[in-house]
Amino acid sequence: MTNLQAVNTLTELRSAVRTFSVERDWEQFHTPKNLAAALCVEAAELLEPFQWLKNGSDDELNPEKRTEIRHEIADVFLYLIMLADKMEVDLIEAAQEKMLLNAIRYPVEHVRGDARKYDEYK
Amino acid sequence: MTNLQAVNTLTELRSAVRTFSVERDWEQFHTPKNLAAALCVEAAELLEPFQWLKNGSDDELNPEKRTEIRHEIADVFLYLIMLADKMEVDLIEAAQEKMLLNAIRYPVEHVRGDARKYDEYK
Amino acid sequence: MTNLQAVNTLTELRSAVRTFSVERDWEQFHTPKNLAAALCVEAAELLEPFQWLKNGSDDELNPEKRTEIRHEIADVFLYLIMLADKMEVDLIEAAQEKMLLNAIRYPVEHVRGDARKYDEYK
Amino acid sequence: MTNLQAVNTLTELRSAVRTFSVERDWEQFHTPKNLAAALCVEAAELLEPFQWLKNGSDDELNPEKRTEIRHEIADVFLYLIMLADKMEVDLIEAAQEKMLLNAIRYPVEHVRGDARKYDEYK
Repeated sequence: MTNLQAVNTLTELRSAVRTFSVERDWEQFHTPKNLAAALCVEAAELLEPFQWLKNGSDDELNPEKRTEIRHEIADVFLYLIMLADKMEVDLIEAAQEKMLLNAIRYPVEHVRGDARKYDEYK
Repeated sequence: MTNLQAVNTLTELRSAVRTFSVERDWEQFHTPKNLAAALCVEAAELLEPFQWLKNGSDDELNPEKRTEIRHEIADVFLYLIMLADKMEVDLIEAAQEKMLLNAIRYPVEHVRGDARKYDEYK
Repeated sequence: MTNLQAVNTLTELRSAVRTFSVERDWEQFHTPKNLAAALCVEAAELLEPFQWLKNGSDDELNPEKRTEIRHEIADVFLYLIMLADKMEVDLIEAAQEKMLLNAIRYPVEHVRGDARKYDEYK
Repeated sequence: MTNLQAVNTLTELRSAVRTFSVERDWEQFHTPKNLAAALCVEAAELLEPFQWLKNGSDDELNPEKRTEIRHEIADVFLYLIMLADKMEVDLIEAAQEKMLLNAIRYPVEHVRGDARKYDEYK
């Protein structure tokens, strides 16, 4: 029997993730470096089902593959939450801050309709 | 001048991310496969500042490195939001579902205090 | 002034790579785990120039991008040589062994012309 | 029954890898972009067995893990050979060229004994 409760927000999810690790005594493995490595491994597992496809559109994905992708997306998210928590980074705030930097770097009127610009985007 | 507004929730952030791409006509590049590749690239950029450190604890990180890590965390999050959006995956729901599967697979009483078990965990 | 000499074989290259690290006192950083992380980071840097392209064919690559790709291929190779050396793995032997396993797993007469089979290949 | 012959050099290995793909009609999947993605996936699979270890030294690895690592090293090498072949990059030459650039960028007398310098190295 598990102690998981329904969560509705990112804050509640982060709290549930913390409890999950503490209950299992897994905090000892969760150094920032290890979490960054695990995140990288999971991101590659998420890339794997797409690697031989043309572009990953609906007609190239069967239900099994969609479920696999869903689970890998969840794994990346869970490790990202753990790493951000360790680094005391608020995910929503940090993303918003980065989008603002990107908006300054890539103004709509400058970028729009110029595919070459996109290639410089990271 | 940018049109970014303050966001407080994951749903609002996803909406802002959508607008950002549409305004720049970047949707054409955002196939699921390309987003999965970009996510993988960003996850590796997040691993990079940790790669030669012992474990990434506070004493190994200066302010510049912490800012870099914060930005890379944001980049991973932004691509994850985009990919989940394309795949019609609700991040909170999918993470919760995966945690439930993990809770069944790794019961507290079975795992606790046994480091070897952790190694089998992915 | 550098001490690099021309190398013609993988064995000579491995020897040059060893000397390069020892001369700089970098062996202390080259744990197997760190080298595996660095290899992963470099592999992602090699993926980066392709991430928004259709398939990376000649017409999508300019000379600058080709040079970047060439350097990233070299970086992946150098870290692979270092990691294999630490793990006492002979690259040629290990690759040949793996190809033999793949040949058994994917017999020509079974696989040929069936794209679905490829998707199961890793 | 397979057609694999013993190979002793990188050139012979590349030739065997080519034949392997052609015989199975797999060339159609091997665009540079797909090979770069597959290489990234395999590099992450090679990182995976190290992700929760301290540094991956001998005492942390059992025979099963060593075999897994050996196979993953081989997979990375095989995809690297395929991608280099498609890009018309000679692996030995490119690695040597990159080492020369690194030797200029990190002169022995400047780098030796200064761990901070290493962190800037990529």
